[in-house]
Amino acid sequence: MFLRADDLLNADELRAVVESARSAKYVDGKRSNPHNPTKLSEIGDPADPACQKAAQIALHALQRNEQFKNFVFPRRIAVPSFARYGMGMKYGAHTDVAFLPVGQQPLRSDVSCTIFISDPASYEGGELAIMLGSEAVRIKGDAGTAIFYPSTTVHEVLPVRSGERLVIITFIESMIPDQLQRELLYSLGEVRALEGLRIDWRNRVQLEYVIANLQRMWSR
Amino acid sequence: MFLRADDLLNADELRAVVESARSAKYVDGKRSNPHNPTKLSEIGDPADPACQKAAQIALHALQRNEQFKNFVFPRRIAVPSFARYGMGMKYGAHTDVAFLPVGQQPLRSDVSCTIFISDPASYEGGELAIMLGSEAVRIKGDAGTAIFYPSTTVHEVLPVRSGERLVIITFIESMIPDQLQRELLYSLGEVRALEGLRIDWRNRVQLEYVIANLQRMWSR
Amino acid sequence: MFLRADDLLNADELRAVVESARSAKYVDGKRSNPHNPTKLSEIGDPADPACQKAAQIALHALQRNEQFKNFVFPRRIAVPSFARYGMGMKYGAHTDVAFLPVGQQPLRSDVSCTIFISDPASYEGGELAIMLGSEAVRIKGDAGTAIFYPSTTVHEVLPVRSGERLVIITFIESMIPDQLQRELLYSLGEVRALEGLRIDWRNRVQLEYVIANLQRMWSR
Amino acid sequence: MFLRADDLLNADELRAVVESARSAKYVDGKRSNPHNPTKLSEIGDPADPACQKAAQIALHALQRNEQFKNFVFPRRIAVPSFARYGMGMKYGAHTDVAFLPVGQQPLRSDVSCTIFISDPASYEGGELAIMLGSEAVRIKGDAGTAIFYPSTTVHEVLPVRSGERLVIITFIESMIPDQLQRELLYSLGEVRALEGLRIDWRNRVQLEYVIANLQRMWSR
Amino acid sequence: MFLRADDLLNADELRAVVESARSAKYVDGKRSNPHNPTKLSEIGDPADPACQKAAQIALHALQRNEQFKNFVFPRRIAVPSFARYGMGMKYGAHTDVAFLPVGQQPLRSDVSCTIFISDPASYEGGELAIMLGSEAVRIKGDAGTAIFYPSTTVHEVLPVRSGERLVIITFIESMIPDQLQRELLYSLGEVRALEGLRIDWRNRVQLEYVIANLQRMWSR
Amino acid sequence: MFLRADDLLNADELRAVVESARSAKYVDGKRSNPHNPTKLSEIGDPADPACQKAAQIALHALQRNEQFKNFVFPRRIAVPSFARYGMGMKYGAHTDVAFLPVGQQPLRSDVSCTIFISDPASYEGGELAIMLGSEAVRIKGDAGTAIFYPSTTVHEVLPVRSGERLVIITFIESMIPDQLQRELLYSLGEVRALEGLRIDWRNRVQLEYVIANLQRMWSR
Repeated sequence: MFLRADDLLNADELRAVVESARSAKYVDGKRSNPHNPTKLSEIGDPADPACQKAAQIALHALQRNEQFKNFVFPRRIAVPSFARYGMGMKYGAHTDVAFLPVGQQPLRSDVSCTIFISDPASYEGGELAIMLGSEAVRIKGDAGTAIFYPSTTVHEVLPVRSGERLVIITFIESMIPDQLQRELLYSLGEVRALEGLRIDWRNRVQLEYVIANLQRMWSR
Repeated sequence: MFLRADDLLNADELRAVVESARSAKYVDGKRSNPHNPTKLSEIGDPADPACQKAAQIALHALQRNEQFKNFVFPRRIAVPSFARYGMGMKYGAHTDVAFLPVGQQPLRSDVSCTIFISDPASYEGGELAIMLGSEAVRIKGDAGTAIFYPSTTVHEVLPVRSGERLVIITFIESMIPDQLQRELLYSLGEVRALEGLRIDWRNRVQLEYVIANLQRMWSR
Repeated sequence: MFLRADDLLNADELRAVVESARSAKYVDGKRSNPHNPTKLSEIGDPADPACQKAAQIALHALQRNEQFKNFVFPRRIAVPSFARYGMGMKYGAHTDVAFLPVGQQPLRSDVSCTIFISDPASYEGGELAIMLGSEAVRIKGDAGTAIFYPSTTVHEVLPVRSGERLVIITFIESMIPDQLQRELLYSLGEVRALEGLRIDWRNRVQLEYVIANLQRMWSR
Repeated sequence: MFLRADDLLNADELRAVVESARSAKYVDGKRSNPHNPTKLSEIGDPADPACQKAAQIALHALQRNEQFKNFVFPRRIAVPSFARYGMGMKYGAHTDVAFLPVGQQPLRSDVSCTIFISDPASYEGGELAIMLGSEAVRIKGDAGTAIFYPSTTVHEVLPVRSGERLVIITFIESMIPDQLQRELLYSLGEVRALEGLRIDWRNRVQLEYVIANLQRMWSR
Repeated sequence: MFLRADDLLNADELRAVVESARSAKYVDGKRSNPHNPTKLSEIGDPADPACQKAAQIALHALQRNEQFKNFVFPRRIAVPSFARYGMGMKYGAHTDVAFLPVGQQPLRSDVSCTIFISDPASYEGGELAIMLGSEAVRIKGDAGTAIFYPSTTVHEVLPVRSGERLVIITFIESMIPDQLQRELLYSLGEVRALEGLRIDWRNRVQLEYVIANLQRMWSR
Repeated sequence: MFLRADDLLNADELRAVVESARSAKYVDGKRSNPHNPTKLSEIGDPADPACQKAAQIALHALQRNEQFKNFVFPRRIAVPSFARYGMGMKYGAHTDVAFLPVGQQPLRSDVSCTIFISDPASYEGGELAIMLGSEAVRIKGDAGTAIFYPSTTVHEVLPVRSGERLVIITFIESMIPDQLQRELLYSLGEVRALEGLRIDWRNRVQLEYVIANLQRMWSR
């Protein structure tokens, strides 16, 4: 299941990120996945101050976003990183690793996030394609928009045919690692939020009872 | 969790069952649990026509009862049986067996049911006591009333101090064997039933989506 | 995850089904889901011989299809049924019920199947849209093609704007009810099939070992 | 399942807590659950030294209590807090939240604990009532007594009709979050403890083997 | 975990089986596993009356054996079959299939069984070797003895270097498919059986309570 | 399942450990398991510098060993400790505790490890015997060799009949606590490693997809 969060970055943040991107230092994308010959991209150098500034902005935007919190049930967020695809670059079909070596204990990647920075009109190709067996979902978001999708999928970035695709990517460990369980809890939370004022108090207590117990049962 | 279904048997059914009980043949309760020295009771002989008639009445009453179906999610119901406790009789603390040898494949006992036949004013003692650690729930129902409780508990029938306690007992295999999961589905079903007319259609679809998927996930 | 099986029905079967559809008797689609006000469609009368003939053809086509068997791990298949959407008809967002009352014990619907009968050029609208949160997958298949998708999703049939959309639908209980687990087993099966001749024998034994144990662990 | 631990607080501790309660600062109980209109109570201000002193005493009493440790399998204990119900006050039916924002990572509330401070003869009403469907367990403990019950239940504090009900409450994250699994491990531990000297050594090894493996399997 | 049941077949049964084996018709062992080039053995023809007679004897011996029932928790047993390994024959490392096409619904193979018919002194080699990573357990049983081992393992029959190895094999679907869970229940059952007379009645009730609930929880 | 890692300690490390052992201080083995009357052995004093030095060497050897990492999926390793069995000493059948009090949060013992230090020719008896029901695996490794086996088993050290058995033991918490699940992941990892260069790229992506998702699903 997907969540597209329009305007995750506000105009000021987007401007600051674009500026950081200009002065940022990039390294070969293979650094974070050396064994994948289909990864042809550049990623921001995590030691570079401009990259760090952009990471902070993205992190802050995530932490204040209610949609994201209701949908992902975030426990930990990996440091966001620039990924840049010039003409002809791509990232072939792959699956995100289960555990990222972050801090003292590995971060389990449950949900993947791409924040689009480039104006979609400025480049051709470069869609994020999530494979769902014989079908696929292709996404090319507006600048400042974020897409959240399950890290459990096989997905790819299609070759950029012109222009440059600049995005920020990150990975989130959720309180609720199973995708379907996370979706069910999200749905119940939405019902509670939307019916909050109309629903009979006793029924609201029942809904709270179910939600709290599913959270206990499914968190890991 | 408990469900007390008042008037599970209607007046006609109760009268017919009481009449059957009078002519019924009883055997030593140890027949169905020979290793338990604390079981001092009599049970109806399953081969006796009067017992079979009472069983049919009880079965039919269960199958039409909506409360029971919403709460227990029944898949199979064991043949109901009379249990009779004369003065001084009791059934010490025990747990119901997991599998009853019923038909071609064993019936898993998830929910236990006692239908009270005697007028509670006609006997002293004989409460059904369900142990919950340091606390207990004691139940003595009106004639025709049924109590449904998890077969997973340790429970007992306290000694009858005067009169006679006549009940019908049975065991149900549920679609949803785990007690807490069954309770959560029951609660969501109640919310759907009670809010059905007021709730926004989109939210109702979300609720259906959650309920259907929990049923798939938890049935066994 | 989706499987699109092109030519599930061969030319002869498609012709026979189209002919059956002409003489078939249809009833209001609400018959199989009376509480959903957004269901505006017609379904084939299960008692009608023409409908029964089409059901047999579809069932037979499914049972011989290797792609379907590898992807769905079918245990039981519900009787296939015509669904017909004339102009303006639709089936709003809904989720398929968890259990269908089929035969002696309910059939758990794990995978839903639509076999397209009408030529897609002959009607406008009428796409099957599977909701995946903020994104959706829309499918309009060639005549004779089948699409398999998880029954666990919220999905809809968009309004038909011209012509008539005729499909056959059915529901399958899988040996492997969990969607992700089913996908992982399907992927391992594909690796085994595709690498079968090249892979070292010892590694093939390891792969068989993993597949057999996952089947044991995940079947329900 | 319930555990009633008599004299969790010894006479000295009880006296010290009562004294702390007198000088303690209280705030509106809604502070910890602002959305529940049925919560009419006062809670101790966590920043107040008298409250902190009482919390330390309660924590220390819990940490030395063997019954509590055998029954709850505690991993983390939330800071205990005073709750005070004057005349007419109550806390309507509710369920405890699944995760409390304690320290660096949220504390999952698996078991709830009420330590009774007021003499039960000094107030009318104010029972803790734990709902179990159609039945309820009502508890009003002696001063110094603690009751432990599953946080997963819907429960309430009935209106105080006279006097004042003062309690200390806390929430515990268990090594074994599932209630039934926790109960089974507790029961096996009791058998091991009580039969320890009589049981054949080989059987004791088998019991240890089962207990250790269930702990591994069920801890989360 | 393994169970070696000495004298599963008594002397009369063993004699009758040996006699059946003499007149039995054998077919290429590849018939039941055509894709495994390492399977060089012969199996009894299931349509042959002598094979059917031996199968009946083995089945009957299994059904009366308490050790087997306590250890395996059998639900269904596949028709036993002769397997014969002449000089040079073997069955290379393999894993038993998860589901056997037996009757109306597939039989899940949880436990594998070999009943040794040949006198172990009459043939060299031919040990059943169960691989446990870097170690292996090798078994060559006396005539009439049965070995039960998890179907989940990789195992092999080593080449026969002289004489003939005749065995009867079968596969059992257990009520408790997970190996460790089955072992824990078996251990608790042994404790209950061995301590039965000495154990305090209350502790016995606790043990029954645990066993019954684990059976409910783990059966599938 | 077992892993025997030959030469876990290289010659220099083995020499240094042997030297440490000579000057090390030992205490009664009952210190770490006071309730087991069958434990007759000595363990290294954790406060002794010679013991600490040997522990560091063993830890370092484990951390660089690829076989160990691929097989155990280690998260945390307990401080290794000397165990010394003089003539007549033994450690009767027992099961390792589920949780060791290590650091701030208990370490779950999933895999047990014995590193053999004495030359096996220098002592008689003293085999590590892992019970698997009616069969057992007996292990006596070369100096410097390590054996890894599930902590979930009942196992023993047989009486030393002559000489001295010196080993280093430790316990590992795995990312994948369930034994069978760990074995399946190990097997898939081996297939990936061994077929890595020959396998079709698409199939390799499928294998990565399965491995990453099983790691997410099974880690705890």
